[in-house]
Formats: sequence, structure tokens, C-alpha cells
Amino acid sequence: MRIAILGGTGDIGEGLALRWARDTDHEIVIGSRDADRAATAATTYTGQLQARGYDPSIDSGENTTACAGADAVVLAVPPYSVADAIEAVEESIEPSAILISPAVGIRSDDAGAHYHRPAAGSVTELVAETAPPEVDVAGAFHTLPAGRLQDLDDPLELDTVVVGTTEEVRERVCAFAEEIDGLEAFDGGPVENAPELEGVTPLMITLSRHNAGLHDVAPRFVTPDRF
Amino acid sequence: MRIAILGGTGDIGEGLALRWARDTDHEIVIGSRDADRAATAATTYTGQLQARGYDPSIDSGENTTACAGADAVVLAVPPYSVADAIEAVEESIEPSAILISPAVGIRSDDAGAHYHRPAAGSVTELVAETAPPEVDVAGAFHTLPAGRLQDLDDPLELDTVVVGTTEEVRERVCAFAEEIDGLEAFDGGPVENAPELEGVTPLMITLSRHNAGLHDVAPRFVTPDRF
Repeated sequence: MRIAILGGTGDIGEGLALRWARDTDHEIVIGSRDADRAATAATTYTGQLQARGYDPSIDSGENTTACAGADAVVLAVPPYSVADAIEAVEESIEPSAILISPAVGIRSDDAGAHYHRPAAGSVTELVAETAPPEVDVAGAFHTLPAGRLQDLDDPLELDTVVVGTTEEVRERVCAFAEEIDGLEAFDGGPVENAPELEGVTPLMITLSRHNAGLHDVAPRFVTPDRF
Repeated sequence: MRIAILGGTGDIGEGLALRWARDTDHEIVIGSRDADRAATAATTYTGQLQARGYDPSIDSGENTTACAGADAVVLAVPPYSVADAIEAVEESIEPSAILISPAVGIRSDDAGAHYHRPAAGSVTELVAETAPPEVDVAGAFHTLPAGRLQDLDDPLELDTVVVGTTEEVRERVCAFAEEIDGLEAFDGGPVENAPELEGVTPLMITLSRHNAGLHDVAPRFVTPDRF
């Protein structure tokens, strides 16, 4: 599988790229508006993984080039850039590709971090509205601390929730997420459920601000039988 | 301390009453609009605990009576009844009392459960707006599955987040929550942070609906050093 990560030079993009490149045989493509920045990032990530004894496959390109031929496109761009980023690349997104949104709109004030909900209801729904109609859309990875993904010594042991336009796309993205070692994925249902999911990220930031020792905090989903 | 639980005949009220009565020396008062229903519930809970060898202190009364002399009043009533419940008892709430709101407005549809946000921003903020101005307000216990609280064989090992009008009230409610065995409490900051916190409850319902084995699911807040 070929996975393009637009905004692959940012922290969440880097974390996902390193993890998939290390833990899977997928071909990773780092996308950026600036092809040179993308190439530099791909070289850096490749070097990091080679230094650990891995032989990763990390390509790079300007966002449009990166999307061409990709089976999945991760929109690891700031939430306010998501619609522009899709419009810039939509001609090159494969009709069979899955667009995956990890972005959350956040507004901070003296009290804490707040969910800054776009008019579409959530960033995931904004992506679904903006994407070409034949392309499946999912939201995932919102609650994973980027710093933990980037730290390859971190065993993760974390959960992620996947919302998506169809049950099939959710199953595919869950499987794809669980190829990252230490990550478990759960079905969050249709994209209409994204607002409550995206709202968890600002809550985590608020908790880290108000509680010593909760830096890089993330939710796990427990039951009497699970932990 | 004397803790009044309005709506103490409902499932979350029952769970909190049983836990505090078992794990602390606080005097618990079950409140209801119907004094007879409250008395029946108090008798039932007392019987359950006595059968397990405990000697609980569980009183009861109509909501107004229950509030009189209480150091904390838990509003374990449906979210749409919260404002009416406060107005009905406000004359009898002690100025030094803490009002604690565990309620979340939820609206379900085919996709999942959604956060039904009141005009005040959240149920906790609605409580803060409605309560007498001298009374401190907190939101807590939203994400605890009622069935797990009610099952006294369940060791919990769960987290709760406390938002509140002042840092002092949050500290008091956190301490008070942690007197329940197996519960850890975190400071969620001012009540303006309640929307993101209350939104977690419908997400948990959505997860339980879309994933086999996630019945009674709840979030724990993990870091590299915590679990």
C-alpha cells in the first residue's frame, strides 16, 4: 500500500510516517507544499530508521505528486488548511483512495483548550464535504500525542477511534492503524460522530495544563474486561 | 460531611450513594421529589450494604429536606430537569455547599450518541448560572458507567475529571471523589471547560454501540508514566 502524508513534515505527520515506515511494508510518501522540505524530511526519517537497523521505504513530493497513486492520503495539516489542501490536490487523489483526517480545531483561553468546531460540524465532516464525492473519508489518530508517536522508544499502548463515511472504510482504517505496534483502533461510527471525538483532544490539553504529571496524556477506553 | 444526592433513586445516584456510604464516613442523604421513593431507596441501599457487613449512614428526604444542612449536593437528575431541580431547592441549599453536576445532555440518532449542548454551553455551566451566586459549582463523574458504580464487586480503577468555579472547589471535589475506592480524580479547570468533558459521555455510548466488548466503556487518562 502507498500512504501519502500531506503535512508530513509536521509533528503528527512525522510520527505516523516513522511508525508506519518502521512497523509495516507500506510505501510512505511525505507530502508538503514545498517539495524540497518534503525531501529533507523523508531523508531525515529514513536516516533515523536506518540508524535503528530498519530499511524503510519513504518517498517524498509536493502534495499533488505525493497523492498520485496513493491508496490512503493522511491530511496532517492544520485544521484551517484542510479544505485548501484538499482543493489543491483533488485532481490527483485516486477515486479508490481513503482520505484520513487527524486534525482538530482548537482555541485556547485562560480556562483551557476548547474545541473550535468548523461550520461543517467537525474537521472530519469538513473533509467529507470538500473531498471528491467518490472518495471515502475517515477521521482517526486525533487523540495520539504527536511527541509519543515521534519517540520510537515509546511502546505507545494507546487507543484510537476511527470515524468514517462507510463501515468498510472504518474497518480498513482500523486495520491500517493497528499495523502500528502498540496501537488499538475502535470503530467510532459515521463521520457525524466526529465532533465528540475531536473534542477529546482539547480536553487532553486542558488536563495536561491543570495536572502535574499529565504531560502527553491520552485516553484509553477501559471496560471491566479490558485492563 | 453530609452529602445530599438529588435524584438519588436513579442509577448514577444509586451508584454514588452506595460507594460513598461504603467507602467513607460521610452521611448520605437520598433526595427525590417523592419522599417515599427516597425512603424506599435509602432502605434498599442500606440493606445491600448491611448484607455485605457494612454499617452505612443513609438518610432520605424530599429534595428540599435533603439539601438542608448538606455540605455537598449532587444533582443526579436528568439534564433537562437540572434548572428546575435547583430552583425548587435553592432556598434550602447552604451558602457554603458545593453543587455537583454529573449530568450530560445526550441525543441519539442512527449514527451514534451526540452531545446535546444546552444554551449555557454545558450542563455544568447551566448549573452555575442557575445556582445561588454564593454557591460553588462543580461538574464531575460524567464518564463513570452507572452500572459499574452500582456493582459493588467492581473495583472500578477509573478516572474522573472535575471542573469547577474555583480551584478550591475543584480540589475539594477531587478529594471527595477519590474517597471512593478505585477512583482517581483530575482537575479539569474552570466550568468553561465542561463542554469537552461532557462530550466524552456520548462518545463512550457511541463506542459501546459500534464495538463488541465495549459495554460500559470509560476513559482512563494515560501517560508514558501512568500505566
